[in-house]
Amino acid sequence: MSGQTNHEMSTIDNDRFWTPTGWRAADASAGEGWVVPGIANLHSHAFQRAMAGMAERQTNPEDSFWTWRETMYRFAACFNPETLHAVAAQLYVEMLEAGYTTVCEFHYLHHSPQGKPYDDPAAMSRALIQAARDTGIRLTLLPVLYMSGGFDGRALSDRQRRFGHDVDGFLRLLELLCEDAGERLHIGCAFHSLRAVPADTMRAVVAALPGGMPVHIHIAEQIGEVQDCMALRNARPVEWLLENVDVDSRWTLVHATHLTPEETQGIAQSGATVAICPTTEANLGDGLFPLREYLDAGGAWGIGSDSQISVSPVEELRWLEYGQRLATRHRNIAVSESSPSVGETLLRGVIASSAHATGFSGTSDVVVLDGNAAQLAGASRDDIVDRWIFSGNRNLVSEVHVAGQRVVSDGQHHDRDAIAARYRATMRTLLA
Amino acid sequence: MSGQTNHEMSTIDNDRFWTPTGWRAADASAGEGWVVPGIANLHSHAFQRAMAGMAERQTNPEDSFWTWRETMYRFAACFNPETLHAVAAQLYVEMLEAGYTTVCEFHYLHHSPQGKPYDDPAAMSRALIQAARDTGIRLTLLPVLYMSGGFDGRALSDRQRRFGHDVDGFLRLLELLCEDAGERLHIGCAFHSLRAVPADTMRAVVAALPGGMPVHIHIAEQIGEVQDCMALRNARPVEWLLENVDVDSRWTLVHATHLTPEETQGIAQSGATVAICPTTEANLGDGLFPLREYLDAGGAWGIGSDSQISVSPVEELRWLEYGQRLATRHRNIAVSESSPSVGETLLRGVIASSAHATGFSGTSDVVVLDGNAAQLAGASRDDIVDRWIFSGNRNLVSEVHVAGQRVVSDGQHHDRDAIAARYRATMRTLLA
Repeated sequence: MSGQTNHEMSTIDNDRFWTPTGWRAADASAGEGWVVPGIANLHSHAFQRAMAGMAERQTNPEDSFWTWRETMYRFAACFNPETLHAVAAQLYVEMLEAGYTTVCEFHYLHHSPQGKPYDDPAAMSRALIQAARDTGIRLTLLPVLYMSGGFDGRALSDRQRRFGHDVDGFLRLLELLCEDAGERLHIGCAFHSLRAVPADTMRAVVAALPGGMPVHIHIAEQIGEVQDCMALRNARPVEWLLENVDVDSRWTLVHATHLTPEETQGIAQSGATVAICPTTEANLGDGLFPLREYLDAGGAWGIGSDSQISVSPVEELRWLEYGQRLATRHRNIAVSESSPSVGETLLRGVIASSAHATGFSGTSDVVVLDGNAAQLAGASRDDIVDRWIFSGNRNLVSEVHVAGQRVVSDGQHHDRDAIAARYRATMRTLLA
Repeated sequence: MSGQTNHEMSTIDNDRFWTPTGWRAADASAGEGWVVPGIANLHSHAFQRAMAGMAERQTNPEDSFWTWRETMYRFAACFNPETLHAVAAQLYVEMLEAGYTTVCEFHYLHHSPQGKPYDDPAAMSRALIQAARDTGIRLTLLPVLYMSGGFDGRALSDRQRRFGHDVDGFLRLLELLCEDAGERLHIGCAFHSLRAVPADTMRAVVAALPGGMPVHIHIAEQIGEVQDCMALRNARPVEWLLENVDVDSRWTLVHATHLTPEETQGIAQSGATVAICPTTEANLGDGLFPLREYLDAGGAWGIGSDSQISVSPVEELRWLEYGQRLATRHRNIAVSESSPSVGETLLRGVIASSAHATGFSGTSDVVVLDGNAAQLAGASRDDIVDRWIFSGNRNLVSEVHVAGQRVVSDGQHHDRDAIAARYRATMRTLLA
């Protein structure tokens, strides 16, 4: 009898692994920690890590997304494969230590600054792949097709030239990269935006992609983009996409900030995922995604660190909810009858979209939260996720396991010092 | 000649201390770090640290500030001097490690849960004082006068009873506490809100205070409060205060979220400080302070961690700016011709208000940022403050010095483990 009681208690005590369907027994290595699934970062421009905090200075009395983009273009012109590798490795260490186990790289820095392909046309892609390998993070590499500088089909500007491909060159790049796909590397396809890819081309490329390949696109981030699309295509961006392309669960729409109620419903019904980037969308003054309406419509969504001014699923999720609270002057927006906890509702959303958006399904990647952290003291299972996301600023991540390998222990990536040293040296070069 | 060059370079290299008027030579102990002044936290309710992350669960389909307050009242009923001391000490360690060197405690948990004064009527105040002494943070203790439960003068509810004083009892408490004031302890006075203190009483208490004593008040946080004030006093809260009380630079108005342009101007002209609490105001769905208009009017302001769902000047300052960007869809709002960097403009604001709001003037408290941090790699002096506030989530604070004593080294408070162990034990008791 006492044996049975002990056995039951031990089982209960071991239920330290949160999953979207309930608490499960965790691997013994979790110890006193609490375990959550690894988080997918659905939208990243690795090179922008190097300019984080360097565009918070007035350049124009009307500073906006568009003046920020000028700063970003100047920065983008500085990178070569070696410096991109160093910056991405530092970024991926920061992501892993924050609890991201997969990153989707929306990668458009393809060629030399003058727009000439490198001898290996995949050289910049390989820099990102190498950075992911160095650090152990899963990578969904999304080479970006970028063909024109506006809805009117104008040519790329000098600063955009290193982003550009014709369709054949782009498909060859995809094919080349697919040869390297493996347990931790998945290849997808990205269109920079509606304005950067002609409508017919977009449809032709989608038709040529291997079945099931993820497709990502920037869309409806800025009001100016909505206005240009209305003027040239007589439809709003999301409206146009849903009417003219076969959008399904392979698709991830990045930002989708400016939506009509019909567009919100339409995305949800299409099965596509929205990659919301709350810290970047706030930093750039984009606006707020209509989260409550989208959840009510049953839409799929995840988060992205995008411009890297924050590298933390906690800050993304917290401020996704807080933005809604500020706009509505109510609390506890991301909840439902079946999920009254905001933190659990948000974490369920992120986990549910992960396989479609990244291409990695059924991973056993986990993040262990420090069971000794003051923020979790005395917590019941009902509180753990809320306290992780809504209780202070210390990083609670103590261990991260990707593809069965422990890459973070005691909160620190196993190679953080060497990678940071190379990053510092690279930054001195970039900023010299 | 080479000697002179070396001397000049050495002087330049040592200018690692940011001040509102420019870079200065830092103490040699800064080493490779970058030094900024210690930050004052203008608004804290220490006991709420223990409930951070535990009110993010739907209790009502119309969750708002007011349903949150019910949760908070239930929590407030649990504390005694011993548990308050343990929670406050943990909180103050977190504040110091985040770069706060002074905290203003807006303290209303005066009596036993039944409303009976403790044998020592200052017992709860002394718990806070002891926590500050244990940790080394400067404390501006603001005992709160709380007399009625609404603008109509209704009695305190059962849950509010432990907050209450009559005027004589309150002034005796102030007098008692002033005996302990010293280098790191300053005593101020707080009125909970306009609804909690009758108008005549407020004027009488202000008249009885020692000259120069800081006075803090919660005001215009919620629309419901503005409506009640309009109904009962025929004026908006800030409008009423400015017309009926001699508001000057001794005053700190906490929140002041809902303002007309005239009220915004009026506060700025009065010389009062606004304590903005961006993370709490977002968590509670309060709304956004009109920062741009207030800066244009030359108003004084600082930040507070308030409900402790975040303990970080970086997150407060970052989201103070981001809220404005989301509302205006522009970037770089907190800037001026003389201060084009957002981070420096924000840091100047926080430093400039500190002495009036806290009562501590001319301190030499400093925070050292880790010069080896990846986030600061390759930075020039122009970038340091922006990068600290707008570049990622790792805490860059490596050392904190208060009143000449180093209380944080290598990012860790000297007594963090023992204080955290006592906090964990206390939390298990509070939540049992």
